[in-house]
Parts: sequence; C-alpha cells; structure tokens
Amino acid sequence: MKTAQLLLHCPDKPGILAEVTDFITVNKGNIIYLDQYVDHAENIFFMRLEWELQDFLVPQEKIEDYFATLYAQKYGMSFRLYFSDMKPRMAIFVSKMSHCLYDMLARYTAGEWNVDIPLIISNHPDLQHVAKRFDIPFYLFPITKANKEEQERAEMELLAKHNITFIVLARYMQVISEQMINVYPNRIINIHHSFLPAFVGAKPYHAAYARGVKIIGATSHYVTTELDAGPIIEQDIVRITHKDTVQDLVSKGKDLEKIVLSRAVQKHIERKVLVYKNKTVIFS
Amino acid sequence: MKTAQLLLHCPDKPGILAEVTDFITVNKGNIIYLDQYVDHAENIFFMRLEWELQDFLVPQEKIEDYFATLYAQKYGMSFRLYFSDMKPRMAIFVSKMSHCLYDMLARYTAGEWNVDIPLIISNHPDLQHVAKRFDIPFYLFPITKANKEEQERAEMELLAKHNITFIVLARYMQVISEQMINVYPNRIINIHHSFLPAFVGAKPYHAAYARGVKIIGATSHYVTTELDAGPIIEQDIVRITHKDTVQDLVSKGKDLEKIVLSRAVQKHIERKVLVYKNKTVIFS
Amino acid sequence: MKTAQLLLHCPDKPGILAEVTDFITVNKGNIIYLDQYVDHAENIFFMRLEWELQDFLVPQEKIEDYFATLYAQKYGMSFRLYFSDMKPRMAIFVSKMSHCLYDMLARYTAGEWNVDIPLIISNHPDLQHVAKRFDIPFYLFPITKANKEEQERAEMELLAKHNITFIVLARYMQVISEQMINVYPNRIINIHHSFLPAFVGAKPYHAAYARGVKIIGATSHYVTTELDAGPIIEQDIVRITHKDTVQDLVSKGKDLEKIVLSRAVQKHIERKVLVYKNKTVIFS
Amino acid sequence: MKTAQLLLHCPDKPGILAEVTDFITVNKGNIIYLDQYVDHAENIFFMRLEWELQDFLVPQEKIEDYFATLYAQKYGMSFRLYFSDMKPRMAIFVSKMSHCLYDMLARYTAGEWNVDIPLIISNHPDLQHVAKRFDIPFYLFPITKANKEEQERAEMELLAKHNITFIVLARYMQVISEQMINVYPNRIINIHHSFLPAFVGAKPYHAAYARGVKIIGATSHYVTTELDAGPIIEQDIVRITHKDTVQDLVSKGKDLEKIVLSRAVQKHIERKVLVYKNKTVIFS
Repeated sequence: MKTAQLLLHCPDKPGILAEVTDFITVNKGNIIYLDQYVDHAENIFFMRLEWELQDFLVPQEKIEDYFATLYAQKYGMSFRLYFSDMKPRMAIFVSKMSHCLYDMLARYTAGEWNVDIPLIISNHPDLQHVAKRFDIPFYLFPITKANKEEQERAEMELLAKHNITFIVLARYMQVISEQMINVYPNRIINIHHSFLPAFVGAKPYHAAYARGVKIIGATSHYVTTELDAGPIIEQDIVRITHKDTVQDLVSKGKDLEKIVLSRAVQKHIERKVLVYKNKTVIFS
Repeated sequence: MKTAQLLLHCPDKPGILAEVTDFITVNKGNIIYLDQYVDHAENIFFMRLEWELQDFLVPQEKIEDYFATLYAQKYGMSFRLYFSDMKPRMAIFVSKMSHCLYDMLARYTAGEWNVDIPLIISNHPDLQHVAKRFDIPFYLFPITKANKEEQERAEMELLAKHNITFIVLARYMQVISEQMINVYPNRIINIHHSFLPAFVGAKPYHAAYARGVKIIGATSHYVTTELDAGPIIEQDIVRITHKDTVQDLVSKGKDLEKIVLSRAVQKHIERKVLVYKNKTVIFS
Repeated sequence: MKTAQLLLHCPDKPGILAEVTDFITVNKGNIIYLDQYVDHAENIFFMRLEWELQDFLVPQEKIEDYFATLYAQKYGMSFRLYFSDMKPRMAIFVSKMSHCLYDMLARYTAGEWNVDIPLIISNHPDLQHVAKRFDIPFYLFPITKANKEEQERAEMELLAKHNITFIVLARYMQVISEQMINVYPNRIINIHHSFLPAFVGAKPYHAAYARGVKIIGATSHYVTTELDAGPIIEQDIVRITHKDTVQDLVSKGKDLEKIVLSRAVQKHIERKVLVYKNKTVIFS
Repeated sequence: MKTAQLLLHCPDKPGILAEVTDFITVNKGNIIYLDQYVDHAENIFFMRLEWELQDFLVPQEKIEDYFATLYAQKYGMSFRLYFSDMKPRMAIFVSKMSHCLYDMLARYTAGEWNVDIPLIISNHPDLQHVAKRFDIPFYLFPITKANKEEQERAEMELLAKHNITFIVLARYMQVISEQMINVYPNRIINIHHSFLPAFVGAKPYHAAYARGVKIIGATSHYVTTELDAGPIIEQDIVRITHKDTVQDLVSKGKDLEKIVLSRAVQKHIERKVLVYKNKTVIFS
C-alpha cells in the first residue's frame, strides 16, 4: 500500500496538530502513523505523519505544493515529504574492516530494508571480495593528501550519477571534507567506536583501555564539519572488565558498531530521523 | 567464621600462585575464595585470596610479618592483609541531595554491609534530618574559599578521631583538596553523574542534554588530584530520548548514581578493589 | 500551575485527535502534554492529554460531564480525568524486607513524588522501625489461614477511611485475595522478583539458580486474580554468572526490585499507565 | 604460538591448583591463561588452563596420558585437553532465516574465529544462495514425519565423514531427535528466541506480545532431549514498548539472536564452556 510520509517542525501553536490531521482525513487519507512531540524548552512542535494514498483526493505530485501553501507558510514550518515507493538510495563507504559492511548487506539481501544500494566506495581494495559476493559494484578511490580533493570530486560525480540520497561510512577511515559534507547535509551517517563525546578522534579503544573505563560504546551520528560532533542518531554500550585487553575491546566493539550503525541506518531509511540544532528527534 | 583477606600484585613469574596457595593450605587454612588475573601487557600478577582462620597455624597477628618475609620480598609483591572481623569504617560526605545517602543508609541499617558508619559530614545543613532518622551523628562544616583549608583540617581531625578508613562522597558538591586526598589515597570514593571521561566537571546533565546523547551514565571512582580522573570502580548507563528534558535526565540519573555508588562502595567494603596505575582490578 | 490529565481509549476513527485537541484549545486550555498511539492490530486509539486549567473556559467540576457528553459517547470512549492538585493516595504493604520500602520513602520524603502516603500495612512487625523513622503510621495485621478474610476486611476499612487510591506491595509476602483485588482493579502494584513470565510463584531466585540462567530480572505489574499474571508495567534485568550463588542473586535482585517497582509506581502516580486487555500502554 | 588448553572439574580439595600449575611450570610450560572457580554449594573445583607448548618437556601426544595418570585419577577429575592447532569443525544447520547464518559466516570469512566450517545443512533450499556466496558446500535434507529418522542418519553420516566436532542450529526449525543428540552431547548449540525459561517452544514472539512483556530476549543453549531445557551458554535482552507489534519483536529479536548465538559459538570455539549438571561454567 503506497503511503506518504511527512516530517515537519515549526514553532508550537495551538491547532497545528488538529489542522494538519484534519487536512489528511478530510481528503480521505487514512493515517496509519502519527508521532508528535513538543520541545517546551525551545517551543518547537515536531511531527511525523504517514497516510495511505489510495483514496487520497490530492494527487501525489501536488501534495507538496498544497501543503506548503496551506500550512507551512501559515505556521512557519520546515517540512519534508516522502513517498514509500521512492526508495532512498544509499552508498556505502568502507576501508578495511568488514563487520559493518556484512551486517548491512545481509539485511539488504534479506529484504529487511526498503532501500537501494547501487554501489560501494572504498579507499582500499581489501573488501572488494565482499562486494563481489553480494553482486554490488565496487569502486576504488585510493586517497592521498595530494589527491584527496580530486578523488572526492570524482566520488561525488559517481554518487550524483547514481542518484545517491545518503551515504553510510561503515568504518571508513578517512575524514570527509567540507565540500562533500555540504552536498549531503545530515545525509552522511558515520559510526564512531566510542560513546561520544568520550574519546573523540583516532584509536578510541586504546584510549578507553588506558582510561580504565568499565563500559565501552559506539555512536552513530550525522557527519558535520566538526569531527565526531554531529547530531547523534543512536548509541549503545557493552560492559568490559579489567581482564579485557585492547584486542578484546576491539572485538567486543565490533558487535556494538555494526548493530548501532544498522539501527541508525534503518531509522534513516524509514524517514524517522529529524535533525534540529545539532540534535535528532527519533520518531517511534 | 573469621577469615583473612589478602590482596596482592607483583611481576608475574612461574610458581607464585602455587607457592602462595601452598602456604595457606600447608598451614591448615581453608581457602574459600581465590581470584587471580595476569595482565600480560604489563606482566603483572594480581590475586585476592580469602581463607578461614579457625585452624590456621600462623597466629593472626603474625600473618602479615610471615607473608612479607617469605613471599612479598622474594617476588617483589605489594600486598594488603585484612581480617573479616576488622570492619572498615566509613564517613559519608553530603551536600543537599539525599538519594545516595538514603540508599547507603538503607543498606547499612538492613545489615547488608559489613561496615561501620560513625558519622556524616556536610557543608550544608539540609540533610541533617536524614542523619537523624538513622541516628548517625551529623557534623556541619560550611565551606567558603576563605575557610576551606581550615575546615578540611578540622574534618580530618574528626575523621582521625573516629578511625575512619575510607570516605564516600555522596554527591558532595565540593572539590576535595590535595591535603586530604594524600591522607586517604584510593580511599575516597566519588560518584560523578556522567559516563566518564565524557562530561568531566560541573553540570554534566546539562552538557549531555546540549550534546544530544542517547545514553547517560554515572561513574564511581577513587578521588585523585586531577578532577574526575581517578581510577574508575564502576559505571552504568540508562537510555534517554529526545523527549527527556534536563530535569528528566537529573531524575533518571539519580537512580543510576545511587546504584553505581553503592555497588562501588560494596566492592570496597568487601576488599575486592585493587588499584594499579590509575586503573582498578575488581575481583569477582 | 494546575493541570487536567485525560487518559482515554476508543475504537480508532478519523478525527478523534483533531476533535479532542480542538475542544481543549478552543476553550483556551494550554496543552502541555500529548501522547497518542494507535494499536492497528486491535484498531484502538489511546491518548493522554494534559493542559493548564488557568484560562480554561470550562469549570473544573464540569469538564468530566462535558467531555462525556460531547466526545465519549460519540466515539465510544473509556476515559479517566485527573487533576494535578488531587494527589493519589498510596498505601504500602510490606512484610520483612526493607529495600523497596526505603527506596520509596526516600523519594517521597525528598519530594520527588506527587503523592500522599498516609499509612503502611504489614503482616509482620519487623519494619515498624522504618515507618517510625519516616513518621508514617504503621498498622500490623498478622495473617493466618484462619483470619485472612477477616484481616483483609479490616485492612480495607482502614484503606477506605484514609481514601487510599492505590496500593503498593513492596515485597509483601501474602497473596491478595479476590475480594480486595476487586475493590482496587488495576490499582494494586506488585513487584515480582523474576522476569515474568519466567519463574512465576515462590522462590524465583532459587529457580533461576537451578536453571542456570545468565540474566535475572524483576517485574512490576498490576495484581489480578491469577498469580503473577497481571498487566506488566515495568521490567528490568541484570547479568549474572556461574559464580553467583543464590545469595548473590538475592542481593543483586534487590537493587533491581526497588528500581523497577519505583519506576512503576512513579508512572502510576503520574497517571501515565493505561490498562487494556491485560496489557499496559505506558505514556512517555 | 601453539598452546594446550585444559578444562577440568573435580571435587574440591586443598592442593589441586598448586599441583596442576606446578606440573606445567616444572615442565617448562609457560602458562598464559588460568581461570578457576570453586562451587562451594556443590564443592566442585573448575579450572581452565592454557600454556605454550614450545618448550614444554612433555611431548604433545603424551600430555593427556601423563595428566590422566598423575592427577586425574588422584583427584577424580573429569578433564578435556585441546590444542590450539586442532581447530574445531563446525556444521551449521539452517532453515529459512538468514540473519544468524550471515553473522557467523561474516566472522568466519573475516578470520575472527579459529574454526573450520566444512558444510551447511538445511531442510529447505531457501538459503542455498547464501552458502554459495561464501563458497561453502550446502546439503539439502528435506524433513517429513515419515523420513526424519532416515534423513538424520544420512546427516550424521555426512557429519562423521567431515569430522564435525560440533553443530550450530542457526534458527533451524526442526527438533533434533535423541539419536543425534546422543552423538553430540553438549555439542549442539541452539538459539531460542526468548529469555528462557520464559516462552519455551514455538512462536515465542507471539507469546511475548500476548503477555505484554516490556523486554524480550534470546537464549543460546546446548541441546538436550528436553525441549529448550539444555544448559544455557548466553542470554541477552532488548527493551520493547506497547508500540511494538509482533513484527517489530521479530525484527528487534533478530539482532539479539545473531549476537547471542555468535557469542555462544565463540565461547565454544575458544573452549571456554564447561558443562556441569545442566549448567555452564563460562571461563573468562
């Protein structure tokens, strides 16, 4: 059943919820999902709404225009409209570690995610065999200081050609530069192997070991120009003890990383993440 | 049944475990607890041993001397010997929040902890009524910049008079100065309301809220001269969502803080914590 | 700021949400909380709504009547209306273990809960001293097979006299009989020391130890006539290992029990629990 | 570096630990792992020991014999001796769901596990493509009531031919019959999609949904002749809410299942699981 998915936020005022839901139901849209939330500190109203299009009186291609004219202007809304039959298109960036890549491809191949994955990009050839196992085109862009800007431009051309809507960095060991981040704002998902903001930057497991923490974590976030400081989508942790070596942390961390990243990617695919002021609203 | 508790560490060499356990069993000590661990990165052997003294051939007051002479010298051991009938004596420092204090006093009063709590110290009068409910002497030492050194000296005299062996800072909102830390090395337990090393210092819940994390934590650690940087004894976390206000974090955090602090205090009371190079070994 | 709190459920139909929120806002009520959820399997709409009464045009004492007439009839709603200044009145039943009792009284005394606790009832005298520490009347009703019915009747008279609105069984080691359950339907909260439905009935820690589970749990639920089978409000777990004795399980379980019970009680006090067909909807 | 791995248990007596470690060190074995535990309720001593064989004076092929003669007899030990260069050989049984299979094959292919996987067996053809992606032979044994005994015999012949040492049921939807269990005692690992002992048997997610639990779990255990009642190796849980449908439970449960199963399999591969009286000792 084809559906429309609407995410919006605006200054909170009486009547928004009533008016918007009324618009759907009056036009014979069957609402199958509604989640809303008011941030009383900022006085902002957030909502995600999903309804079936079958009997909806407004033609699909005109919904955005009507909604903008009738409600968005009036309430000062920012909104995004999606349709269930327009799948997001995802590019995966990897380097040498395969655990996150396998986890996502297994879900994809099993049909768990409503997404297309037209390509995998890497700065190392190591994981080409994984791409091949799953019959997904693999593009190698070795990165050096000298060629980084040029290679990223080539990557972006490739991404544009394949109509990629968002990027997942699956333990991609290169900092994405500002030019690419600006093209995919809040649409590049990274997995960092610590419970941010602890242990920003390189070698967080070594840092965690040195500090003697009793829990380690992983954090999935949107990439912004400040390293490891973008809006957090999902985090989780696992207990460790004094008996765990750095290698044990790496090993236990891998399971965390892949699950946390996949949960974040799934929420993004389902269009259930809304970013506001460097924080995320995660709809149910 | 009276027992001896031995905690030790030394450079790892073949035979230590065999020799030490042999010493106990040959002298008719019944070993009821043995936990050991080798840090292969540092090549250090750690052990905790507990045995019944009833039929032990070495008189209680000579065990320390014998062990030092026979084994500690030979292996370059650091060790501590405790006896089950010599209870640790604990002072609690509080300010205005009661949740950790109540949690510890409830355990103490119910007989769950093998400890004496001869006194509670505070820089504010707010929790005097709690001390009174549990019939524990309450001493008020208001702290200002001007009188801090002097007040701490008075506190230390009081602690010494009561033979206090360790201090618990139960959301005590004052930095302990170096003079007191040096008198109680690795014997002042603090609870910090974040998953350290994230959000060191003041107002960690506000910082966690501002950063938009999806989990908050609490950390119990020994106090050292560097703020919130001492050896970590215990940590735990709880999930939050975008719906949680700062006040919600404070409220959810309280449950974390009291449980994490009480777990750490319990491990300390049971003499199951060994500090080595700013990290803890927590015996089972 | 005085508020009204409305919990309702009814068969899902288009327009309910719009109509109900419209009723509040048109009458100048400022909505400060709205959480709704549709069970698509059962086609039931659930909502919790809270609004400030200050400028609300409908007089407080007429809201229930107006709402029933205008909406509840039309949509076949079940609803409950509460006011923030009418505190729930809670009775605590205990036997011999103090951990849950202390935990709740600490919160109550610290002003964390918007509730009155006029009395504590017990079938054993053991915890009278705790009630006394907190200056709460303690009533002893020893229970035998012979006197149970009679004692419960006396308890119910006492509860009625104090206008008790709900009961918390804080490790009360007696089965509540049907006559009392019927007077307090979904208003008696129990804590069971297992992750239900595992280990129903007596001695769940012994059963967990015998089965060799790697996690233990605690479950808070409303009491129904079938033992340990009522609607679950909250559950949590803690990891154990083969090293944990039954006594260790009891000890670790106590922390679980008190936190799980207090979370459930807090949700009930906040009027955020709605029972439907032996399951709970827990509003955010 | 080649190592020997020794797991043993016997009635606890003074001197066992000293004697056994002495045997290793006197014969120039370098102990790199020692974990021991005494079950004081049952008075049983458990130990896992690992040492480097390079300079060990006892020839590898004679260790078992020497140890049996010198210590096992004397102390009434049950023991098992393994060598790091003799990899366990694992068969995976699947039906239609791929998540556990992918998770294990990703680890295997990445070289994380010291194991051989010579074959995959299934009662359905659905996952043949997965086996093919990873170049592992796939054998189809469709099972009906009529042919079950015969098919299992054929499977066992195949397993024997490939020197399989243990079997992993990766959501294999068939009950293994007694004849096969007896051939692989405590060597068939199953994943059950509930926190056992809750929801034994078929459709545990439906049962969990119907009961209204707030947490769901997964349990990995050795298969015994009583359904879902074998020794538990590993369990974990995830929180759910009233908003989760049965399909959501299935989806969230998949992540649990694969992680819990892989953790259990890893412990088994590392020879860190010892079964005693239907419970497991899991070495660190």
